[in-house]
Amino acid sequence: MDVNVVNLKEKAALITELHAYKRIAGMNDYDFKLVKARREFVWHRHPDTDEVFYAVEGGFEIHLREKILSLKEGDLVVIPKNVEHKPVCKDLCTVLLIEPRGTLNTGDAGGALTDTLLEDI
Amino acid sequence: MDVNVVNLKEKAALITELHAYKRIAGMNDYDFKLVKARREFVWHRHPDTDEVFYAVEGGFEIHLREKILSLKEGDLVVIPKNVEHKPVCKDLCTVLLIEPRGTLNTGDAGGALTDTLLEDI
Repeated sequence: MDVNVVNLKEKAALITELHAYKRIAGMNDYDFKLVKARREFVWHRHPDTDEVFYAVEGGFEIHLREKILSLKEGDLVVIPKNVEHKPVCKDLCTVLLIEPRGTLNTGDAGGALTDTLLEDI
Repeated sequence: MDVNVVNLKEKAALITELHAYKRIAGMNDYDFKLVKARREFVWHRHPDTDEVFYAVEGGFEIHLREKILSLKEGDLVVIPKNVEHKPVCKDLCTVLLIEPRGTLNTGDAGGALTDTLLEDI
């Protein structure tokens, strides 16, 4: 058994690539993934699961069809399953995602931004 | 559909009671619970689930049988299922717990500190 404390910002400091998801923890069949981003993502939905976004560093937006959510550092939001959303990181930000293991970043949309790599850091 | 952003520290500021768990979000069948604490908790384990602790404000310890974990603000740890642990908050701290809905705070230990109330804030 290996139980270790991780600090979100210290883990973020280890990430040098943009848009590469890094696994920092696992809870049951859920992954905790950090990503540094500066891009407008694609509209997509996750048909089978809710998805948590937590703003670790910097702010970003999550566009829904009927409104835009603005997150600043320390903010958390749960995007319910099947709800279309488009994360937009105009400025560099670090996001913690919590979702079931194997959840694809692009959900039902697929396409060039789909990333199936997930390195532990 | 109601999708709203919550800020962990702003939610914490709404909590005036110690040791009363408040639900700030739900993801699938998991709850995100905030608690303000200043106490030594009881040794217990959760036979069916891992449990996430995140230090929102202040630091605290989680005692394991073979070591003591020290968490400072921004630290996260996953206590694996069936691993005995005892959270110890010597100074006032705010903790975010992530665990399956219905998980008891005292796990298999039960006793006077068991809290089954869970108010949404």
